[in-house]
Amino acid sequence: MATTPIKSLVDHIDTEVTIGGWVDVRRDHGKLIFMDIRDGNGYVQTVVLPEHTEALEVATTLRSEDVVLVTGKVNARPERMVKEGMNGSLELEVLSIEVLSKAQELPFAPDVELNLDTLLDYRPLTLRSRKERAIFKVQAEIVRAYRDFLVGEGFTEFQSPKLVGGDAEGGAGVFKVEYFKSHDAYLATSPQFYKQMMVGVYEKVFTVGNVYRAEKHSTSRHINEYTSLDLEMGFIKDHTDIMALETRMLRYIIEQLRTNVAEEFKTLGAELPTAPETFPSFKLREVQALIKQETGEDCTEEPDLEPQHERWLSAYAKEKFDSDFVFVTHYPVSKRPMYTYEDEADEGFTKSFDLLFRGIEITTGGQRIHNHDLLVEKIKGKGLDPTNFSFYLQSFKYGMPPHGGLGMGLERLTAKMLGLDNVKEATLFPRDLNRIDTLLSKNEDNNDNAASNE
Amino acid sequence: MATTPIKSLVDHIDTEVTIGGWVDVRRDHGKLIFMDIRDGNGYVQTVVLPEHTEALEVATTLRSEDVVLVTGKVNARPERMVKEGMNGSLELEVLSIEVLSKAQELPFAPDVELNLDTLLDYRPLTLRSRKERAIFKVQAEIVRAYRDFLVGEGFTEFQSPKLVGGDAEGGAGVFKVEYFKSHDAYLATSPQFYKQMMVGVYEKVFTVGNVYRAEKHSTSRHINEYTSLDLEMGFIKDHTDIMALETRMLRYIIEQLRTNVAEEFKTLGAELPTAPETFPSFKLREVQALIKQETGEDCTEEPDLEPQHERWLSAYAKEKFDSDFVFVTHYPVSKRPMYTYEDEADEGFTKSFDLLFRGIEITTGGQRIHNHDLLVEKIKGKGLDPTNFSFYLQSFKYGMPPHGGLGMGLERLTAKMLGLDNVKEATLFPRDLNRIDTLLSKNEDNNDNAASNE
Repeated sequence: MATTPIKSLVDHIDTEVTIGGWVDVRRDHGKLIFMDIRDGNGYVQTVVLPEHTEALEVATTLRSEDVVLVTGKVNARPERMVKEGMNGSLELEVLSIEVLSKAQELPFAPDVELNLDTLLDYRPLTLRSRKERAIFKVQAEIVRAYRDFLVGEGFTEFQSPKLVGGDAEGGAGVFKVEYFKSHDAYLATSPQFYKQMMVGVYEKVFTVGNVYRAEKHSTSRHINEYTSLDLEMGFIKDHTDIMALETRMLRYIIEQLRTNVAEEFKTLGAELPTAPETFPSFKLREVQALIKQETGEDCTEEPDLEPQHERWLSAYAKEKFDSDFVFVTHYPVSKRPMYTYEDEADEGFTKSFDLLFRGIEITTGGQRIHNHDLLVEKIKGKGLDPTNFSFYLQSFKYGMPPHGGLGMGLERLTAKMLGLDNVKEATLFPRDLNRIDTLLSKNEDNNDNAASNE
Repeated sequence: MATTPIKSLVDHIDTEVTIGGWVDVRRDHGKLIFMDIRDGNGYVQTVVLPEHTEALEVATTLRSEDVVLVTGKVNARPERMVKEGMNGSLELEVLSIEVLSKAQELPFAPDVELNLDTLLDYRPLTLRSRKERAIFKVQAEIVRAYRDFLVGEGFTEFQSPKLVGGDAEGGAGVFKVEYFKSHDAYLATSPQFYKQMMVGVYEKVFTVGNVYRAEKHSTSRHINEYTSLDLEMGFIKDHTDIMALETRMLRYIIEQLRTNVAEEFKTLGAELPTAPETFPSFKLREVQALIKQETGEDCTEEPDLEPQHERWLSAYAKEKFDSDFVFVTHYPVSKRPMYTYEDEADEGFTKSFDLLFRGIEITTGGQRIHNHDLLVEKIKGKGLDPTNFSFYLQSFKYGMPPHGGLGMGLERLTAKMLGLDNVKEATLFPRDLNRIDTLLSKNEDNNDNAASNE
């Protein structure tokens, strides 16, 4: 249909146009009817005047979410009537309306605050609100900027399989798939092995795709299917090369968000993060010592940071370094996967890092072992059988450079960028213990957990 | 590590550089050693002269796939010695070599022709060949161009879930996933329902992601996990709007390939397709009548084209219209999913299309039903229960514009672009009846099918 995009109406002042969209809100003012019309990328206020009797007759019957073609004249508003936001400087005077599709009555008023369960129960409808549209527009822009940056750095994108023959890292719970007769397969918890193999092919690679964690808990930080932004690169000095790349990448993404989705940030009342040229970085033990010194709490024997310690460190980094990002490095060998590179200069600790952003870990990364025999030894050291890794191990048998990389959860990154409390708010169709689109039919096991949506 | 990308060496004539890469081939010429060195994006011939004794000593021990840092001087070749291809105008005179990683002896010579099974058995190694690297470089470029085109057309990208609560379309076989206690989930065979829901949100949307078909056959056209390029848009006149969009999109992709991966096409001996401004288009019945008239074969009672008829039509389109692409429209209602739009002007037939490319279907698309009550009726008509579709149906309950879209398999498109016989050759890590990376342990059932790799 030959329609004019609503966000381009400013270029059509004093001309007649046809727009296609949804009735966002209708307001009757005696003999006048005002309607906000919304299309894929824009909003505009329209007015139906009494002299356009046919249009007025149709407008009287319209309700929110009806789909219409509206032909009208684009009128500039007088200076003193100009409003903030898109198309605030104009109004569309409706000449005729064609109804393409009627909506049923909405289950709730358009601007009412919904709890998370209702928001998700009515996802196809609730995603249409200005707020939800802004969230996932920002998410799309994050992904675009991520790819754009890496392509510019000479990285090659690849498609990673999600259906795998075994539980690769032997860590997080995995979902089992009934493959063909008498075989099981699993859903990948990460593209880790594949991106390492691809370093052997293209040296610098990235992939964007879903990963799966069969973790049986329901928190504000976890979902069972999420989108992982993964990258891996060869010929690095050590993990600090990856940290430097990530710093530049996040600064690039933030600049792209500032340029392209400022309006969406405004809609959400969200603030872009502060990202200095170098992010502060501490060894885990330094952080633990700091926490002890500053708060009196002793977590120096822990192999990782608890959520409240991550929040404490983020607040500290913000105050002392004016940074919303802070790296934590040198996690103990025992707590990291078998491919993690041990620091020769700091035995028992790894050349690995987490990146915390506004109180939560958004990235895990580091240097990986590239020596075949050492990797085999480490696999055995974790109590695993190297023959189960024979496919992956080929890369190391046939020459791998020093390399490393990182993985970053898109939904968590989006949530923290926008100051959303729950990662599910930054997931279009979140899957969890209790829900795949609709609630899973209740059973005792699920009911136990349903309430713990912290 | 501060290395110079090999493909940029032409900018460094007469200077000293350090490159990092893999030994592609080593050739001993008496007192000289020649080595082709390869990194992520390039190749260069290097020479180790007798006077650089230390470098020569190291070079003598090197084999293919060893990973090295090579410091050397970039020398221009004399005019008459210039070769074709990357860095053909120069040679790197090796001054020193640092070995980063030793490779074991290769299981086969680098340039030997491998059968598909061996190619896949040794995927982490075989992907490093010039040919394989070219294939997946082209694939990455197809995806980049696809996204680039759609973003330019005002489409919004979204992340579609792959873990679904039921078998959405009730068509192709689905893989079952053990979700949490006493629930099953499935792997999505398509993002169809989600992209339609997202039309209600952003009007024009696209997504790139894996889809799954539990089809128990092993052919040159099928894999069980593939990457689907999907798009969907609102406010269309009918299916021809989608066909026109696809035509422009493919022409754009082809131009991008011509500009950015011409070298890879040359490596593969592949030719870019002919894509006229308008692709020829026939109703299915017209094609069947043509086949009868031209070949005498009567397939006029069939609801679809057989592979040999697709090949016949492609050859016909190439000869008569000089087009590697040809649309077939108006498949019978009975053979298309319940959401397919029936043509009011051609009862019993749908506003749907397939796109054939060089003898094979690469796209299925069309207009979808946007009226809620009609859709419910069609669901019932297929013997399905509308209550199982309640989540999806919300979109239609609350106002949907006329819309349509298409899905396109990335691997199949890549294969046909490059003239590869088997779709698995255009899949990095193909999953099929017999293989997830390594061969699945044999059993009688599998052995029956293992040979039918047509």
